[in-house]
Amino acid sequence: MKTERLAEAIYHSNPLVNTEVKEAAIAGIIDFIAASYQAKNEKEPALIVEMILEEGGNGKSWLIGKSIQVTRAQAALFNGLQAHLLDYDDVHSDVRGHPSAVILAALFAAGDPDTSGERFLAAYVVGVEIMARFGEAMNPYHYTKGWHNTATLGVIAAAGAIAYLREYSPRLIAETMSLAATQACGLRIQFGTVVKPLHVGIAAQNAVKSADWIRAGLHSNPDFLNEKLGFFEVYTENIVYDVAVNWGDSWRIVKPGLWFKQYPFCSAAAHGADAAVFLHEKYKLSEEAIQAINIRFPPNGDAALIYKNPATGEEGRFSIEYIVWLALTGKPLTFSFFESKPIPSVWRESVQKITRENDASIKPSEAAIPAGRFTIVDVTTNSGEVLSKRIDTPKGSPRNPLNKAELREKLLRAVGDEAKAEMLIAATHNLYRTTLGVFQEIEQNI
Amino acid sequence: MKTERLAEAIYHSNPLVNTEVKEAAIAGIIDFIAASYQAKNEKEPALIVEMILEEGGNGKSWLIGKSIQVTRAQAALFNGLQAHLLDYDDVHSDVRGHPSAVILAALFAAGDPDTSGERFLAAYVVGVEIMARFGEAMNPYHYTKGWHNTATLGVIAAAGAIAYLREYSPRLIAETMSLAATQACGLRIQFGTVVKPLHVGIAAQNAVKSADWIRAGLHSNPDFLNEKLGFFEVYTENIVYDVAVNWGDSWRIVKPGLWFKQYPFCSAAAHGADAAVFLHEKYKLSEEAIQAINIRFPPNGDAALIYKNPATGEEGRFSIEYIVWLALTGKPLTFSFFESKPIPSVWRESVQKITRENDASIKPSEAAIPAGRFTIVDVTTNSGEVLSKRIDTPKGSPRNPLNKAELREKLLRAVGDEAKAEMLIAATHNLYRTTLGVFQEIEQNI
Repeated sequence: MKTERLAEAIYHSNPLVNTEVKEAAIAGIIDFIAASYQAKNEKEPALIVEMILEEGGNGKSWLIGKSIQVTRAQAALFNGLQAHLLDYDDVHSDVRGHPSAVILAALFAAGDPDTSGERFLAAYVVGVEIMARFGEAMNPYHYTKGWHNTATLGVIAAAGAIAYLREYSPRLIAETMSLAATQACGLRIQFGTVVKPLHVGIAAQNAVKSADWIRAGLHSNPDFLNEKLGFFEVYTENIVYDVAVNWGDSWRIVKPGLWFKQYPFCSAAAHGADAAVFLHEKYKLSEEAIQAINIRFPPNGDAALIYKNPATGEEGRFSIEYIVWLALTGKPLTFSFFESKPIPSVWRESVQKITRENDASIKPSEAAIPAGRFTIVDVTTNSGEVLSKRIDTPKGSPRNPLNKAELREKLLRAVGDEAKAEMLIAATHNLYRTTLGVFQEIEQNI
Repeated sequence: MKTERLAEAIYHSNPLVNTEVKEAAIAGIIDFIAASYQAKNEKEPALIVEMILEEGGNGKSWLIGKSIQVTRAQAALFNGLQAHLLDYDDVHSDVRGHPSAVILAALFAAGDPDTSGERFLAAYVVGVEIMARFGEAMNPYHYTKGWHNTATLGVIAAAGAIAYLREYSPRLIAETMSLAATQACGLRIQFGTVVKPLHVGIAAQNAVKSADWIRAGLHSNPDFLNEKLGFFEVYTENIVYDVAVNWGDSWRIVKPGLWFKQYPFCSAAAHGADAAVFLHEKYKLSEEAIQAINIRFPPNGDAALIYKNPATGEEGRFSIEYIVWLALTGKPLTFSFFESKPIPSVWRESVQKITRENDASIKPSEAAIPAGRFTIVDVTTNSGEVLSKRIDTPKGSPRNPLNKAELREKLLRAVGDEAKAEMLIAATHNLYRTTLGVFQEIEQNI
């Protein structure tokens, strides 16, 4: 049974013997906290808190960035929504989506103050591993069909991570993932609405509930990867894939690794953004000096960038035209430009000067992640000169990662309180030796 | 926009002007209460209650058959699981699944004590209509692929019913159904486990949450039936179907109508069960007098009856061999024979005498529901005589329905307390003139 082999592999996982793996997990948690805090004062998390307080319940978990205790299901929903709200959380190229938002939202909700920090880190690594391997098995069919991978693969990965965290038997690991798989949902048609981040909260919540139901004594079919009527048969076309093969030979949280975003927009726009920032810093062109802009991608390299002429900043998260124009004209790529308010009409006129091109004749760099991706920005000035910049590995991507200082800076900006940010960083670095309660203490004491 | 037309149609629905429709809704509620009470003392509802009490929360809704108040989400989950637990709840041939378990579980959870009974009945009719029309649009592809229709179509139908109950605008009806559609889930690979009825509770819960989130101010993509990346494109292949066409010309709760089960097993076995009961009553054969049994279906007429040699009574719900043998040898088709305990070995030996046949040469009756379905039981005695009975419209199916006295009897057996059963029946018949609180009063006063 494919599911049985996978559950056995998860059960016997011991990823932290590798120091690089441990460091990657620590960085992932810091970035997750940064993305969560950055969204802390938005209106949707406040609305969810209001609904949680109205619903009530016996607190077992806490909300990231808040000091109130709520039920596990409520915490998972809130933590997931908040982490993904600004599209500022990490990305993984095997997943074709956002692993940490859903896995850590679920793990923080499912854990207790006395949960071992070491086990928590390992569970996170295991969750990313599950999600990346399911991504490999199911893409591109699954994503292309219209599924929101972050949610559909995330619920299974998060369920497996919780089952590992709680040291369930292989049989119950399989049953927990099976119960999560039968709740896998989330349609890409919701992209551009708040339902996209809500999907992440729903997936985290369904993972937590699956783990709780199985622990309480409900039983699911343990072989959800069966070829007949199983998860792969319904959700993709590659039904004979063995997800557990070579488990533990390397860990996908390190290789290829997580991508930590610098900017709050779709990672497919990161190459072009870096190119435009470079051109602005080098040439300091005024808006009037620019006659035309052409942006070149490999075939399909811009598939996720669905808005050419966005109406709102929220749609602008998926518009290479808007992002390149902001950067070229010296605007900082900060949150205020990517909110759900209309884009000023001056930008809309400027965007008319911009064209896109998919060019199959350009050889991609072998270092590029995602594989084969590049973006070239060509600016034609009024004097007829063409200024050009090509990016293969944008800042933040695994081959050009944020260093420790840059990650610290990301967290600091998000938290807005240096002392608290330093405490969160220290707690994460020490988590290996302590328990999950350290985070809750930081929230309660400040 | 297809979704907009559907939402407008739902918004303007006024089904109760037709007395037949009102009577059908009343019968559906009585049958739902019967199926729910029948499962009341099983272990899984008790386990869910235990988890609900541990989770806590501010009560707004109540559990069918209990006097405690819980959150809307908790009530929806419990009500859905309980109603479908014994596979004793109604069936609809357009749905290819169980409409009332999910729609009424959600509506009872979403309503308040002062909710108009008239509006509640109408919302139930609207929900069945949505579910049947989605069933027509998506089957057989959707069911064959491996989806559990009752859950995947049910969540959308229940969400639409709640939005109608609460008099949401057409725009918010569309957004509520869209938010439900992006949570549609449930795999048939879980059939034969408690996850099958749990799916119903999850679907009802997701419907309630969708309606609450939209009311609170979250927004989804209102056009979830868009041809590009929309619900039909991802979940079926018939993406151009117009669900709203001729809305209200007739109501599917009446035509073809609901099927109320006599017995706690898959409705696909009901024809054979009735035939076997007839043969037993007419000939009173002893077990020793039977040499062989052959059961004939139209092609694929036995597709749902996946166990030929069931190991447990729970699997026996999907075994025509087990059910026919029970009936022919004079065993009553009662709950004790369909529990999750092993079937006595004496039955297993007897089952060896039974064969199945799919016979395309037999002309189905035009009255048959589902269309084209029949079952013929042929018994060969030790003296070589062949005794035969054919059933096209089993008792309980829309063309041979339970009459009022039989439905009352079903509820009475389930409730086990004649006074209380009569109060529930009277409350349902009077619901049109009162509010939903009448049910809660009955629970609290007894």
